[in-house]
Amino acid sequence: MDGMTFILFGATGDLAKRKIFPAIYNLFLDEKLPRAFAVFGTGRRDMSDEDFRAHVEQSVKTFSRRWEDDRDRAGQFLSMFHYCAMDVTQPQDYGKLAQRIRQHEQEGKIPENRIYSLSVAPELFGVIASNISASELGSATGWKRLIIEKPFGHDLQSARDLNRSLRQFFDEEEIFRIDHYLGKPMVQNLEVLEFANPILRTLWNNQHIANVQITASETVGVEERAGYYDKAGAIRDMFQNHLLQLLMMTAMQMPRQFSAREIRNEKIKVLKALRPLRQEDVAAHVVRGQYGKGWINGKPAAAYRDEPGVDRASNTDTFVAARLWIDNAFWSGVPFYIRTGKRMREKSTRIVIEFKNPLRDAYPVRHEKPAPNLLVIHVNPYEGVSFQLNSKHPGKHSRIEPITMEFAANANDVPEAYELLLYDALRGDSTFFAHWEEVELCWKWVQPILDAFSDQRVPLHMYEAGTQGPETAFRLLEEDGFSWWELNRHAEEGTLGVRREALSVSGI
Amino acid sequence: MDGMTFILFGATGDLAKRKIFPAIYNLFLDEKLPRAFAVFGTGRRDMSDEDFRAHVEQSVKTFSRRWEDDRDRAGQFLSMFHYCAMDVTQPQDYGKLAQRIRQHEQEGKIPENRIYSLSVAPELFGVIASNISASELGSATGWKRLIIEKPFGHDLQSARDLNRSLRQFFDEEEIFRIDHYLGKPMVQNLEVLEFANPILRTLWNNQHIANVQITASETVGVEERAGYYDKAGAIRDMFQNHLLQLLMMTAMQMPRQFSAREIRNEKIKVLKALRPLRQEDVAAHVVRGQYGKGWINGKPAAAYRDEPGVDRASNTDTFVAARLWIDNAFWSGVPFYIRTGKRMREKSTRIVIEFKNPLRDAYPVRHEKPAPNLLVIHVNPYEGVSFQLNSKHPGKHSRIEPITMEFAANANDVPEAYELLLYDALRGDSTFFAHWEEVELCWKWVQPILDAFSDQRVPLHMYEAGTQGPETAFRLLEEDGFSWWELNRHAEEGTLGVRREALSVSGI
Repeated sequence: MDGMTFILFGATGDLAKRKIFPAIYNLFLDEKLPRAFAVFGTGRRDMSDEDFRAHVEQSVKTFSRRWEDDRDRAGQFLSMFHYCAMDVTQPQDYGKLAQRIRQHEQEGKIPENRIYSLSVAPELFGVIASNISASELGSATGWKRLIIEKPFGHDLQSARDLNRSLRQFFDEEEIFRIDHYLGKPMVQNLEVLEFANPILRTLWNNQHIANVQITASETVGVEERAGYYDKAGAIRDMFQNHLLQLLMMTAMQMPRQFSAREIRNEKIKVLKALRPLRQEDVAAHVVRGQYGKGWINGKPAAAYRDEPGVDRASNTDTFVAARLWIDNAFWSGVPFYIRTGKRMREKSTRIVIEFKNPLRDAYPVRHEKPAPNLLVIHVNPYEGVSFQLNSKHPGKHSRIEPITMEFAANANDVPEAYELLLYDALRGDSTFFAHWEEVELCWKWVQPILDAFSDQRVPLHMYEAGTQGPETAFRLLEEDGFSWWELNRHAEEGTLGVRREALSVSGI
Repeated sequence: MDGMTFILFGATGDLAKRKIFPAIYNLFLDEKLPRAFAVFGTGRRDMSDEDFRAHVEQSVKTFSRRWEDDRDRAGQFLSMFHYCAMDVTQPQDYGKLAQRIRQHEQEGKIPENRIYSLSVAPELFGVIASNISASELGSATGWKRLIIEKPFGHDLQSARDLNRSLRQFFDEEEIFRIDHYLGKPMVQNLEVLEFANPILRTLWNNQHIANVQITASETVGVEERAGYYDKAGAIRDMFQNHLLQLLMMTAMQMPRQFSAREIRNEKIKVLKALRPLRQEDVAAHVVRGQYGKGWINGKPAAAYRDEPGVDRASNTDTFVAARLWIDNAFWSGVPFYIRTGKRMREKSTRIVIEFKNPLRDAYPVRHEKPAPNLLVIHVNPYEGVSFQLNSKHPGKHSRIEPITMEFAANANDVPEAYELLLYDALRGDSTFFAHWEEVELCWKWVQPILDAFSDQRVPLHMYEAGTQGPETAFRLLEEDGFSWWELNRHAEEGTLGVRREALSVSGI
């Protein structure tokens, strides 16, 4: 790998502490960093390199399970870190930073390859990119890359504006937009599951699949993010980016090659085939919810509107469920149901493929209605794959019952999303980053929903914290003769099964 | 269920002790016996009912895991048992037996429904059937059924002769030929797996399946059965009956109804489509083996020819492997490989479905050759189903590796073969018994092999005890570009995986 310098804006922030430093440390342990590698952290706060290294050490100790109390190793790791205080809105500060970096490069004979990682408020993305370009930093002889975090815009227009400002200084190939769901190992595994298994390739289409259910539910509430979240809602925070990415990864066809370009082309084909929603149809296909008070794991949980920092009259969605149609030869007729919510009963990200069940009313044994076959891809909090098949109960004579065949990854073997993504960015592999065309098409598809929500054309359904969301989200599937497959209650015991469950939402 | 009397010939024998009494006891515990139910045991030995009950109690205590030390329950169970000493070759002894049974029926107002179960040497099958018919037993007003154990004949001609003699006194519908492999829960489950799962129904044909491998390997040697076994060999003891039954259950098409008749029709269609073997072709498709000395689980094991009761120059097969073709629209082009052996490395009965792997040389990632997808049905010693799929290794970037998704039945829930079969016989359900037409077609298909073996037209390959059989059995598959999937060495730890393994047979 090329020698390079990693310039981290927002180096004293939360993301750096929790994710970025531990990820760099894990890559260091796995010898996945280039031989010549330095990190320059920047922030407003004044700090010496030593202070910064102490901060990095503390972060890694706290957030990486792999921290080893080996002074030599730790010293070697920490010596890569440098700090440069600056105000990112001040162009002259970039000159200071550039000088330090250049000095370091020259001393170490390191090529002027630089990755700029922006862990700062999104309002600063454009300013920083512009200042980088205008400063000495902009005239490096090596390559440059830009890593940015979500949110990428607030709606279609703001996303286009932001992209335009970045593209003045960086080419699309130089921009790595992190969608950390794309870094999750089971999401990266989707392409292998779908394409390297002939039996799944055979089944992966509308001849065999009845519907697809993508769920990302959290038990946490808005936490400390109310300022951002109350303006964004679940539709922007989760749906427009993460969940549509999961949809693309699930529905894409086999690329000619597993290159970033070919995979992206296939993903974009999915987005282009998504049936557009007209604003007046949003209410028929999208459910908007907000949590009221309730109970989470035996503890009382406040209503969203009572959370600190949230407007007491807020209509922000903390839950969204939607039915989508992909109008192409492979998926025509197969509804994709997507839902995400905070303060739900379970923390779980999963994709459930429900296969067609021609036997439901045609199985030649009286009173036996075989359950549909399912393939469940468990993305989070544990990684695994399970099949639900019908089998004969060995005891009860001849009765058919579903069994779950499962594979669960050993959690210790599974790297974190940030680690995988950062490594890809260092290597310049953009396969698992969000390309502008994807981001733009996602905003475009979501825009009528944003408009319908802000015009209050879609009712806001309240749901009790700790439940499976508003009842209306169940009706959405019932209209088509389906129901959500809920996590088996024994999931915590390591069983990856799901089950169809009668709704028991008491409402508010 | 009708009231009935169960007449057991060979009641002091080994099968009764190990299998039949424990099975009746388990059915008793599960309340699956008819309210009016009596067992009349017969044997040459003189014994009182009390002696017989003590013998039954001792057998059940030893061989049923479910024995409960509850005197009331035990007393209720044992009171069903009666004993009548007799010489089965003496017609007048049947009169005595008939009298005792009739007396019992009249006292209990039990209908004259009688099941005759023959746990005796096969030479006696015809004699007993004939004597039953000629005696007072033959003129009962209720129904009659006959349960017989293997072997059913020694070759095609002797099987036909035996059947003819039985059919003089019993209709085909009254004859229940036990093939205890058909009683194994996973074998009974095959019809549900194949037909109640739309995704498997889609895949269950020559478009998707590359080959099928049926293995029944034992670690034991000939044990105390040399007198019978040295004349029979693996081809008669295992192949002609059990393994061809597994083949039929695997390859049959969906019956219109799950009735004994419709299922049998489908099974017979498979046999009729089996490509006949000409005697001169046997050597090309069938491998004959015999174990030499070796090691089993760290202990030395004697060669077959050194076993007590075996001819020192015996050419009897203790191992058979064969390639079969089913010439119909569903299976044309798919080889079925069947093997069975004694003194093999593992005790395992399993069916491996290997799916076609068009990606082997066409996966669009360099140096990646995805393994074939497999479905493995584990019949014995544990019951389960597993899928082998390709997945991305979360650690090693992008590398594809096989994972095993599995379902293992809880061994405690699984009834024994005899229990299931006996229950079916009591109910008169012949689905999982071998019909004469099946037995005859199996003998017919096997006859050229018997002839070729006895004419020494097929080489006898010696294999070391504790190995995977003779090397030639591996060549059989290699000719077609395949290899046997061997049990994962971690199978004993509960992993149901299999793997392709380089042959390491040292030979003798």
